[in-house]
Amino acid sequence: MAAATHFLTPDGGASLVDDCLYGWGADLIVVYLRCDPERLQALLPPGLKVADGLCMAYVGAFQSASEDRPDAMLLNPAGTVYNEAALSIACTYGDRKGYFPAFVWVDKEWSLIRGWLNGYPKKIGAITMARPHAYNPVTGGGLRVGAVTGGICSRHGFTLMRMGLTLTRAGEPGDLKSRPSTFGHRHWPALHPTQTAVSELVEVNRTDLKIGDVWLGEPFFELGNAPDEALDHFRDHELVAGATYSYGFRIGGATRLEPIAR
Amino acid sequence: MAAATHFLTPDGGASLVDDCLYGWGADLIVVYLRCDPERLQALLPPGLKVADGLCMAYVGAFQSASEDRPDAMLLNPAGTVYNEAALSIACTYGDRKGYFPAFVWVDKEWSLIRGWLNGYPKKIGAITMARPHAYNPVTGGGLRVGAVTGGICSRHGFTLMRMGLTLTRAGEPGDLKSRPSTFGHRHWPALHPTQTAVSELVEVNRTDLKIGDVWLGEPFFELGNAPDEALDHFRDHELVAGATYSYGFRIGGATRLEPIAR
Amino acid sequence: MAAATHFLTPDGGASLVDDCLYGWGADLIVVYLRCDPERLQALLPPGLKVADGLCMAYVGAFQSASEDRPDAMLLNPAGTVYNEAALSIACTYGDRKGYFPAFVWVDKEWSLIRGWLNGYPKKIGAITMARPHAYNPVTGGGLRVGAVTGGICSRHGFTLMRMGLTLTRAGEPGDLKSRPSTFGHRHWPALHPTQTAVSELVEVNRTDLKIGDVWLGEPFFELGNAPDEALDHFRDHELVAGATYSYGFRIGGATRLEPIAR
Amino acid sequence: MAAATHFLTPDGGASLVDDCLYGWGADLIVVYLRCDPERLQALLPPGLKVADGLCMAYVGAFQSASEDRPDAMLLNPAGTVYNEAALSIACTYGDRKGYFPAFVWVDKEWSLIRGWLNGYPKKIGAITMARPHAYNPVTGGGLRVGAVTGGICSRHGFTLMRMGLTLTRAGEPGDLKSRPSTFGHRHWPALHPTQTAVSELVEVNRTDLKIGDVWLGEPFFELGNAPDEALDHFRDHELVAGATYSYGFRIGGATRLEPIAR
Repeated sequence: MAAATHFLTPDGGASLVDDCLYGWGADLIVVYLRCDPERLQALLPPGLKVADGLCMAYVGAFQSASEDRPDAMLLNPAGTVYNEAALSIACTYGDRKGYFPAFVWVDKEWSLIRGWLNGYPKKIGAITMARPHAYNPVTGGGLRVGAVTGGICSRHGFTLMRMGLTLTRAGEPGDLKSRPSTFGHRHWPALHPTQTAVSELVEVNRTDLKIGDVWLGEPFFELGNAPDEALDHFRDHELVAGATYSYGFRIGGATRLEPIAR
Repeated sequence: MAAATHFLTPDGGASLVDDCLYGWGADLIVVYLRCDPERLQALLPPGLKVADGLCMAYVGAFQSASEDRPDAMLLNPAGTVYNEAALSIACTYGDRKGYFPAFVWVDKEWSLIRGWLNGYPKKIGAITMARPHAYNPVTGGGLRVGAVTGGICSRHGFTLMRMGLTLTRAGEPGDLKSRPSTFGHRHWPALHPTQTAVSELVEVNRTDLKIGDVWLGEPFFELGNAPDEALDHFRDHELVAGATYSYGFRIGGATRLEPIAR
Repeated sequence: MAAATHFLTPDGGASLVDDCLYGWGADLIVVYLRCDPERLQALLPPGLKVADGLCMAYVGAFQSASEDRPDAMLLNPAGTVYNEAALSIACTYGDRKGYFPAFVWVDKEWSLIRGWLNGYPKKIGAITMARPHAYNPVTGGGLRVGAVTGGICSRHGFTLMRMGLTLTRAGEPGDLKSRPSTFGHRHWPALHPTQTAVSELVEVNRTDLKIGDVWLGEPFFELGNAPDEALDHFRDHELVAGATYSYGFRIGGATRLEPIAR
Repeated sequence: MAAATHFLTPDGGASLVDDCLYGWGADLIVVYLRCDPERLQALLPPGLKVADGLCMAYVGAFQSASEDRPDAMLLNPAGTVYNEAALSIACTYGDRKGYFPAFVWVDKEWSLIRGWLNGYPKKIGAITMARPHAYNPVTGGGLRVGAVTGGICSRHGFTLMRMGLTLTRAGEPGDLKSRPSTFGHRHWPALHPTQTAVSELVEVNRTDLKIGDVWLGEPFFELGNAPDEALDHFRDHELVAGATYSYGFRIGGATRLEPIAR
């Protein structure tokens, strides 16, 4: 087992992150926003250029498993599932189009550390997503026209964002505002002049992307506020579209693009 | 809106429970156990008779919606989803066969109160269930032969039970050890001689049961311990079978069978 | 051990509540509000009459122990401590002056059930209180002039209320707007016509009250909103005063005053 | 404000960690263990040498505030308090005596990240500590001979450790097995060959240490187990002593001692 992080032990079994490929599966609600490009650019690391103000707000239920521990669900189920919410900014690196996930909240620390190591800025939050279950006779048969779905993210007692959809029609992966790259900022600062700092722009090595079960809907979105967040960068926004879907992919680390001076 | 419980307000909007039909949808891992019938009988309210020692241990992800607020998922998603784990005892009331859910843990208090009102003894616990996602390339395509799934329940920092399955074959609803009735104990004691107490045996009014996506597997089960639980009633046990499946149903309260003297 | 509630077992060891005297110790931040008496009256059960609009908003860190299990802190620490936030209304029952705790949130279900049994309407929330520690060199030496303290309560991801103080002077118990009685509403409804319901007005049997370490301060208070709460009853308010203090007391159930027809 | 970490924003207000001195105040239960020195050495980073097998297991309630945001308790209380449990190993670096906190669990991610940046290996856990409140008439007047206190730490549903004390006498700071230095391992690995890694031995810059309210007691300690922890390194142990006390201190980063090759 190629374990990478604390807790460091001889056999690596207590590491938060395995140093190998991981696979993900997830169900997602996404609301696309158009925000003020200038306010967004201020959140991008040097090297990335804001697109046209397009942002992706989402909340989802995720699961992941490393190729070194594919059977973790059996013996350590809470080490395999997490919820995530995010505000992600459409941007470019040179001529490569992608998103930079500026603010991400998850409810497991191993997802946070794995995220930071791959350049995803993450905090811990309380996140819930609800989608109608196929067998519930009151909400009625899973995703369908007229069904509603919603999510909420809070942290430290403050509502950060809520979102939801009233489904209007089945869609296809092409209906999503996907962009091929995901950029990140691997940032590990020094808290003392003798320490070694790291700050580098990366691109996440995501492969085997598969998207399905796409439904489009009338979006609902509400942005909150908190004394230790910076949500005002997304305050001015208009709702562009909303969708819910499932997807899966592999990530094998993130490739360094260039150093970032700070 | 016919709201029933605290917080009592003029329009009923702050009630934990609505006084109307609810619909459920859920995904479940169940491990059937054979326990000591005498130890089980000691947990049954008067009027119920233990069957042959059969018990059902389960952990699941549930959602529910009331007919008065079918759209709660959109605006209050955390008010619609919960996780539940339980130890339930096969028993009879006269010639009616059913289960009595002796120990149930959930992670939302509205499920706890709704449960107590219908005779389900519930506490709050921390519960996680994990099943392979259809799109995860590492766990590989959802439920299938060889896939693993697991769950865990803890409370106050103590592991109460863990369970899981290695899937061996697709099954059918008839493979489950279902019994038509669910019995409950509506118990609301007096803490002062002047107070009014309630204690009555009930049968839950469950309708529209639909079961599907049944998979059978090699079960794993481990019982924990805690200073304020009574898990030793299930300590001697053998594993009978294991399954994972989805189901949905409606509950419209619980019908009183007889009073219980205490 | 005189255990009272689910889980009912032969030796009572899995009951959420013991049927005996409990003792409490707590640290509290309270902000006194003046609200619209008419909106408050609508939250009082029949038999109680609103005073002059005075309300008490508080957040606190509580501990409790029953006389049957005074040593629970050693073996079950999470069964002895909880956080609580509340909105409580000054009112009278005949010529007796008291408070009715209209909305109470706690973070342990045994406190919720014990509360409902004694007439306190409670839900589960996420509650944090912070007061400066005596040894922290940055916040500086515990409670003192200029120190700040604060609390927050959320539920289902929604901020319900925040409050805090900037301390201005040491005070005394007489500076608090205490009232001798605490009234409650023991309400256990029927969810089916065959079930037995309970609804009765009670007065909590609180004894051995001891208050100390009183500090007064400039209050801060902010009321939130949630789709399944009724906070608008307190929306119009002015800040009257704020204090932080410690107290302890015993509660031995609640005495029934009169039935409530519903 | 000199903010250091994600989320990186122009004014630094969304950073998890401020780049300045922090002050702490805490209440602690500690149980000293004697473990197998060889099993402990395997957990120490190169450069540290195990002492005589002495370890410190503790659970505590902590608060911290940065000099840049001393008033955070008022507006963001949940950003100032956390619980922590740990297993820390007595060791030496050359002739400097200290502890290396091998396994630390906290319940806030800003404490985790601040910890990792200063060399403390931390994960997120669920931690509760309970000590008798001075005003509780049942537990009786705070810390005193015969009083009990306890704590528990779990993660992912698994009990990791429990501990507690029955107090036998008031003590003094000199009764504690303190050691002047705290060593750490700043470890930030590469998950891709192009990334920059950091791994360095540090000593935490702790100043202004003040200890008080020391009580000694008969210790209770129980070690749990989890599939993604390595608690067996502490499995063979004898109980040496137990204490509960309060303390405060400042930390201004950690000074690099030497690089660690991995």
